[in-house]
Amino acid sequence: MSALYDPERSRRGFKDELKSSSMIKTDIIIIGAGPTGLFTVFEAGLLKLKCHLIDALAQPGGQCSEIYPKKPIYDIPAYPEILAGTLVDNLMEQIKPFEPGFTLGERAETLEKQEDGSFIVTTSKGTRHHAPVVVIAGGLGSFEPRKPLIANIGLFESKGVEYMIKDPEQFRDKKVVISGGGDSALDWAIFLADVASEVSLVHRRNEFRGALDSVEKARELAKFGKIRLYTEAEVKEIHGKDELHAVVIKYNDQAKEDAYVETDYFIPLFGLSPKLGPIGNWGLEIEKNAIKVNNAKDYQTNIPGVFAIGDVNTYPGKLKLILSGFHEAAVMCQFAYQIINPDKRFVMKYTTVGGVQGFDGTKKEAKKEVVQSIN
Amino acid sequence: MSALYDPERSRRGFKDELKSSSMIKTDIIIIGAGPTGLFTVFEAGLLKLKCHLIDALAQPGGQCSEIYPKKPIYDIPAYPEILAGTLVDNLMEQIKPFEPGFTLGERAETLEKQEDGSFIVTTSKGTRHHAPVVVIAGGLGSFEPRKPLIANIGLFESKGVEYMIKDPEQFRDKKVVISGGGDSALDWAIFLADVASEVSLVHRRNEFRGALDSVEKARELAKFGKIRLYTEAEVKEIHGKDELHAVVIKYNDQAKEDAYVETDYFIPLFGLSPKLGPIGNWGLEIEKNAIKVNNAKDYQTNIPGVFAIGDVNTYPGKLKLILSGFHEAAVMCQFAYQIINPDKRFVMKYTTVGGVQGFDGTKKEAKKEVVQSIN
Repeated sequence: MSALYDPERSRRGFKDELKSSSMIKTDIIIIGAGPTGLFTVFEAGLLKLKCHLIDALAQPGGQCSEIYPKKPIYDIPAYPEILAGTLVDNLMEQIKPFEPGFTLGERAETLEKQEDGSFIVTTSKGTRHHAPVVVIAGGLGSFEPRKPLIANIGLFESKGVEYMIKDPEQFRDKKVVISGGGDSALDWAIFLADVASEVSLVHRRNEFRGALDSVEKARELAKFGKIRLYTEAEVKEIHGKDELHAVVIKYNDQAKEDAYVETDYFIPLFGLSPKLGPIGNWGLEIEKNAIKVNNAKDYQTNIPGVFAIGDVNTYPGKLKLILSGFHEAAVMCQFAYQIINPDKRFVMKYTTVGGVQGFDGTKKEAKKEVVQSIN
Repeated sequence: MSALYDPERSRRGFKDELKSSSMIKTDIIIIGAGPTGLFTVFEAGLLKLKCHLIDALAQPGGQCSEIYPKKPIYDIPAYPEILAGTLVDNLMEQIKPFEPGFTLGERAETLEKQEDGSFIVTTSKGTRHHAPVVVIAGGLGSFEPRKPLIANIGLFESKGVEYMIKDPEQFRDKKVVISGGGDSALDWAIFLADVASEVSLVHRRNEFRGALDSVEKARELAKFGKIRLYTEAEVKEIHGKDELHAVVIKYNDQAKEDAYVETDYFIPLFGLSPKLGPIGNWGLEIEKNAIKVNNAKDYQTNIPGVFAIGDVNTYPGKLKLILSGFHEAAVMCQFAYQIINPDKRFVMKYTTVGGVQGFDGTKKEAKKEVVQSIN
């Protein structure tokens, strides 16, 4: 396997190589594209190391993008207030010169150590990644959808039952039943009202927890028959042969008659819950659902060459703060450099002095002082 | 001494108490008001701990304000580019709700441990500070002015020789000789041209290193006789009895005749050079001009209750990055909390969830989700 990996070649011909091989090669595989994973690209880039990120979510930013993009964060240093989504945008801009690769919407499933000490990480969709260093920046884990308690729901997954909407076009001119009472359920019901042939929205309460304008918009659409509303009700049964055919909606008020609704899709949007997931089976030392690392040195795990940074790791005094993930990323990259370049010594230069040299040919640097004769 | 310290009272009546006592009391004394020291106020504030900062420089911000306020920094997370001065401004805004105290323009000289384990820190001007925890966030040390090699210069310090300009009014209608070829020398010569009765600017080269417009402005003022320029020349002798009376300027070209210039002030502005200074004599374990700390836990020094964070500390794998100082501050504050409140347990809440409650009565928090009935 060692012949496959050549960081110089990987940097020069990264994209070309991708075409001719099913293996993505890089210097550092980063599992998790939240703020810590993203900032790792910057610190690695200063050391001329290339990164590739893998994330189960469909876009970078982790929780910040998926769960609370519009919520302000107050403890990012030098930002008295910043929206989580803006934090991610700024990090994406900061790392752009270092051209990170992304494998999104796929969960890292297996880690295989190669004879030469490098690693292959394979995702849920079979995408393979090869690098001498792996960094787990997995936050609270991969966010798995919360599933309703319906006995046979597993039989219909990807056969009419979907827990996430990646491409709304999938639902064009189809009948759709959405359940849930938060922003996701409201927003998708509103959006699909114009796409699907029929949209039903089922919620076990009468009150929705969502942005005020979403609640009003949904109410409006319900009034004009574009959304059929079932409140104080739950989907309790799923029917179909090979594929989903109908759902049964039961009201909290048992005196009310059940609704049998024919549908092409049932989309429960009950939020996401974090799970360490397959990473838990990689032979890493785990404590309280987090990965133990050596905080006295390099944030390496018990597997040499595998680091864990950000909320996913644990050590004495660990704080689950984004700013701590940033520090751990900076320290960890220095040690990754030593693994990747065992014979070189990297002399750290401050960006204020040395500037930032992107892999894309861009260069940022402070203006030099003017030297001028006064006479 | 223990009766003197009461964190609750210090918080309630901080300013009143100052008036009635020559001792400043607080929860955490921070030595060094650079970015790391400033951000410590924020992390301490989240734990309801009050801070007082001491710095030898006349304004907060450390090197960022004093040496390179207009230089861009590229490695502050989520800032693709930020001027050092803006970084300081943003940190000052972020910590404002926590009402930090400042003792500026005074160097921390002595650290005295009290019987109850608390500390008194006394500055070069005799200002005394009392707290149960001391954090040294001293950067590269205190910035000491570089002094010209003139044998008897020490005799005239504060008697006509000044290495820093704190209050330009001191020089109104006086004769002033400035030496140096950088921004400071140029800018002060230009500024004092309107204040002093006579300004001479001495520089050993003909070329100045400064902003283009400063060089042009100085050239203009020289043309109109508002600044007397001595280039390719140096102040080599100082004369006077009790106070400075005159300097002798010698040209590089020895054929040219020396200038004997009568003056009230001689101000060499040759830049600042960092020195660990008196902190080096406090009994702290020092290695390579930095303070050794326990990075596996709390960034505490060998003196219990005294922490060191940011560029002033050292440990295996230490990176002198501002972002590392931020992390060290956050971790250190948690342990300071335990020292200050040995019987309480603080449960960390994310600012996104719990908001930020200032000591000044301000409160920042994320908007709660709207809960609304849809029918």
